[in-house]
Amino acid sequence: MFFYSSYPKAMQKLVNELTKLPSIGEKSALRLAYHLLIKDREESLQLARAIEEACEKVCLCETCYSLSDEPLCTHCRDQNRARNLICVVEKPVDVIALERSGKFRGLYHVLHGLWSPMKGIRPEQTKIGALFERVQKGLQENSEKFPQIEEVVIATSTTVEGDATALYVAQTLRELGVSVTRIAQGMPKGGELEYADEITLTHAMDGRRAIG
Amino acid sequence: MFFYSSYPKAMQKLVNELTKLPSIGEKSALRLAYHLLIKDREESLQLARAIEEACEKVCLCETCYSLSDEPLCTHCRDQNRARNLICVVEKPVDVIALERSGKFRGLYHVLHGLWSPMKGIRPEQTKIGALFERVQKGLQENSEKFPQIEEVVIATSTTVEGDATALYVAQTLRELGVSVTRIAQGMPKGGELEYADEITLTHAMDGRRAIG
Repeated sequence: MFFYSSYPKAMQKLVNELTKLPSIGEKSALRLAYHLLIKDREESLQLARAIEEACEKVCLCETCYSLSDEPLCTHCRDQNRARNLICVVEKPVDVIALERSGKFRGLYHVLHGLWSPMKGIRPEQTKIGALFERVQKGLQENSEKFPQIEEVVIATSTTVEGDATALYVAQTLRELGVSVTRIAQGMPKGGELEYADEITLTHAMDGRRAIG
Repeated sequence: MFFYSSYPKAMQKLVNELTKLPSIGEKSALRLAYHLLIKDREESLQLARAIEEACEKVCLCETCYSLSDEPLCTHCRDQNRARNLICVVEKPVDVIALERSGKFRGLYHVLHGLWSPMKGIRPEQTKIGALFERVQKGLQENSEKFPQIEEVVIATSTTVEGDATALYVAQTLRELGVSVTRIAQGMPKGGELEYADEITLTHAMDGRRAIG
């Protein structure tokens, strides 16, 4: 970055911090820094304050490990949601994707990672153990905080790691006598058969259902 | 953004601020916010502080209107640069692009906009007037701050606005008796003739030079 050296130090520092963000390269960082400095500076300071405020206030929900600004997240506090149903996802953003569909009205459990021998990630490095504990406590206590879970819907990605994690979670939970399902795999909406891969088509064929 | 409502308020605010950045849509903003909150929070706070520091320290150079952290920018302070040569560019980032080439060792003048009747931008809304004043003062004073300018190289973009601005600047400066040039237009390095447009080829042909 020798050619940035002619730039103000504070700007070099800003560009450097911006490049640490995902999918922001040097050129994008430079463009963003330029925008932050040339356009409305009050807006830039608002962004800085929003980052600070979010870092200070946002934590993980004690029960489901979603992002939250209280010890329990809005889903865990919501008494209108089915409390005997848990949907297991990998990342907090996956919760948003599911909420957008409006189809799931139970509780969530965010794993914050998937079991991946390839990447050297063991189940203990994720919240998989916390899920087992949560389900087990529900069976023992059936309390407000740990309700009895009847069904766990696994919604991990349909990747090798997602599949492995789903299988591992399913096998362990079944031993506890809990019903475990996984969201359907098949053709995505708008997908053309011509371009679908074999595995997707195999899953789609396997999961065929009566219509009409 | 109804589906974000289940997310912590501080995070919604952060996503909202991030979407104000150029070419950051809702999905990117969400991914960035997630990164800022899940990964190293110390790093996130460093970014916030870098924005604040840059907003506080970075200003425009009094003479050339580049970004600077002192009243005069590094180029204007650099006594090793040719002080009778000004390169005129549209944006502060253009200075970086030229510095990267290492080919120009004079002073700069950043217009912060181009003359554009189509977009309703008049020369007065840019630093074009300041350029004329700067050149004129140089002719009168020939001082440390306002050296006499012998050549003005125009390096605005090769767009309609860039061309119009170049012509306007050139005509006015020529009346002051200053030599005005414009950077060459032609084939870019690595460009294939097959895909070059007519205007580029016309310029390339017009600007042909003896080789070998």
